[in-house]
Amino acid sequence: MKLTEGKKIISLAGGLPDPRVFPKDDLAEIASEVIKEKGDRSLQYSPTIGVSDFREELLKFMLRKGVKVNDDDDIIVVTGSQQALDLIARTFIEKDDEIIVELPTYLAALNAFRLSKPGITAIPIDDDGMRIDLLEREVKRLKWLSRRIKFIYVIPVAHNPTGVTMTLERKKELLEIASKYDLVIIEDDPYSYFVYDEGVDTTPLKTLDREGRVVYMSTFSKILAPGLRIGWVLGNRYVVNVLERAKQTADLHTPTLTQFIAMEALKRGVVEKAIEKARQIYKVKRDAMLRALDKYMVEDAWWPKPVGGLFIMVSLPSYDIDTKKMLPEAIKAGVAYVPGASFYANGMGWNTMRLNFSYPSPDEIELGVKILSEIIAKKLTGKRVRITPMSFFKQENI
Amino acid sequence: MKLTEGKKIISLAGGLPDPRVFPKDDLAEIASEVIKEKGDRSLQYSPTIGVSDFREELLKFMLRKGVKVNDDDDIIVVTGSQQALDLIARTFIEKDDEIIVELPTYLAALNAFRLSKPGITAIPIDDDGMRIDLLEREVKRLKWLSRRIKFIYVIPVAHNPTGVTMTLERKKELLEIASKYDLVIIEDDPYSYFVYDEGVDTTPLKTLDREGRVVYMSTFSKILAPGLRIGWVLGNRYVVNVLERAKQTADLHTPTLTQFIAMEALKRGVVEKAIEKARQIYKVKRDAMLRALDKYMVEDAWWPKPVGGLFIMVSLPSYDIDTKKMLPEAIKAGVAYVPGASFYANGMGWNTMRLNFSYPSPDEIELGVKILSEIIAKKLTGKRVRITPMSFFKQENI
Repeated sequence: MKLTEGKKIISLAGGLPDPRVFPKDDLAEIASEVIKEKGDRSLQYSPTIGVSDFREELLKFMLRKGVKVNDDDDIIVVTGSQQALDLIARTFIEKDDEIIVELPTYLAALNAFRLSKPGITAIPIDDDGMRIDLLEREVKRLKWLSRRIKFIYVIPVAHNPTGVTMTLERKKELLEIASKYDLVIIEDDPYSYFVYDEGVDTTPLKTLDREGRVVYMSTFSKILAPGLRIGWVLGNRYVVNVLERAKQTADLHTPTLTQFIAMEALKRGVVEKAIEKARQIYKVKRDAMLRALDKYMVEDAWWPKPVGGLFIMVSLPSYDIDTKKMLPEAIKAGVAYVPGASFYANGMGWNTMRLNFSYPSPDEIELGVKILSEIIAKKLTGKRVRITPMSFFKQENI
Repeated sequence: MKLTEGKKIISLAGGLPDPRVFPKDDLAEIASEVIKEKGDRSLQYSPTIGVSDFREELLKFMLRKGVKVNDDDDIIVVTGSQQALDLIARTFIEKDDEIIVELPTYLAALNAFRLSKPGITAIPIDDDGMRIDLLEREVKRLKWLSRRIKFIYVIPVAHNPTGVTMTLERKKELLEIASKYDLVIIEDDPYSYFVYDEGVDTTPLKTLDREGRVVYMSTFSKILAPGLRIGWVLGNRYVVNVLERAKQTADLHTPTLTQFIAMEALKRGVVEKAIEKARQIYKVKRDAMLRALDKYMVEDAWWPKPVGGLFIMVSLPSYDIDTKKMLPEAIKAGVAYVPGASFYANGMGWNTMRLNFSYPSPDEIELGVKILSEIIAKKLTGKRVRITPMSFFKQENI
């Protein structure tokens, strides 16, 4: 984020929404109304778990979206989904516990989890999401080592950073393994609102789960406005209660005002309208980025086609290339991206880069990819090899 | 907070501002404007350390208020001062470190600090704030025990829960001891805006400090609206940088929108107007509570006169009375308060209760104190004894 403040470069870094999708007029009207007419409540302290009426609206929203809500579930409002990750790390993970994530996975989740010093096992993804066959093997291994596995963290639909989505079959297999080994699943779902292709199964794990072992989290950052910092966690009442107690110490409660604004935006259909608008805009941009990659990117580079989300993860065809070292050069040439290694829990993926297509314009996307491709082409002198997350799964493969 | 949601009881618990002090019309106009005209920025992600323009405004506000800003200081915006306490606990305190606080002190600070498992030494206060003579004795003792003291946490002006203020002389002595033993001071200042009596020295420790060892924190919760959840920390650049890195994992950044609203409220003088209005209203209420206590409260009960802030801490004249056990009875009779033990780091103070006067009306204050006094009178059957924080300093005194 810091990179892009003030400089005139094409940012394919970050994950900023296109500000054109912000429903400014609606939100201005809503904000004015909730302060003027309900200011006694909207400007006051509110419960740690969230404003009651807002939590009701969120539950209705979940049901409209096809997310199953169990009788013994509860919902807590958090200050952006980053806080959910932080609270989960602080309450679930004790030192030397093990957690399981995707390879690659969302870097800010890794950073939050790491503060609690767990062991992290990463399961590679392919075009159909997490490789469940490898997951079971790893779970068995960890159990054999008497490791205590606290949860599996997964972004099943429109994954960050790769944009892939787990097939329905794999989702079911994942739940079967979770059931067999009695594991909790943290389902992070910021992007399922933005699936651009037909025939993609977007069923949440939460909905397929019959045992109450899935903790579902999502956010308003992409579907309304990130500047509100509102996320939520839906899960078993016991889990929500633990998170609530941790949140009380962390920031007492999420701002009341932004909760009132988001609540009205839900009630008035502003959120669903914003989602529809964003989906159309982002589809055009994703297609622009895929076209630019096809046109300019070096041969043997690999990227899974993102069926949704805001990103494409490009894997460059050489173990000798380090996208972190390359970044200053790219910025000098006018393009920023996020080096991929931070998404790799096992310290690998140094040849990968995450490119964002939601914020830049289609023209900027084409130019940015072109510039990047030229820099990369110059660096690739030796033998080229196709590298996927699987290549990084076992060191002996390198 | 939970206690008061929905029930019709007189709440002398919590620390809620009187909603009449919220500048609703001004804030409604500001919110509408910053969304409509600056929505591309006010609804977007923003830097972890805070919105740059807002941080500039905050620095100007600090200077207007007489808080010294050093050349190597920096300022970070946090999601309510609760988050500042949490980040300080997470970054400063390692297990088995020692921290020093006032006896009694703010309970939510204690809760935040305790998560990092420090030893806590509590120095009793009297009408002039922390007993600095005892502080030095304790610091010497801790040093002799080779304890690593991480900081002294203090609310020097209009203290929570007692409302007392340190004299200028004691502030200087505190800084001398901090200098002599090379200790960091965390100065929590939510209430110095509300000092009701003449001749009270409100100079911040930060301003008296010549060595950059004071980390100053404050909040908009009482001077504008708690529902915005905006606080800030002003201190040495190195400290702010450490807090910034911790905040990135905790919630990425404080909501951009509420920062824009608070910024405009500062620019347009709305904050200073709200402070003036609140001070007048709260002075009347404090006086009402003091009158009610004088009129109804049992003999030999003790409370320091609060020169500012939102609370009076009442100490009941018997070690046999437990205000936590008494609370359900009080609530049944229609009054809530906060049992004082939670403010006592050493597990004592069970005979004390914190009464808030900012939220209830003067009539409610009188009735509430009357009801409480009647309940207490019935419980006090044995010998009465005047109990102050000093009584709890060394167990042998009991």
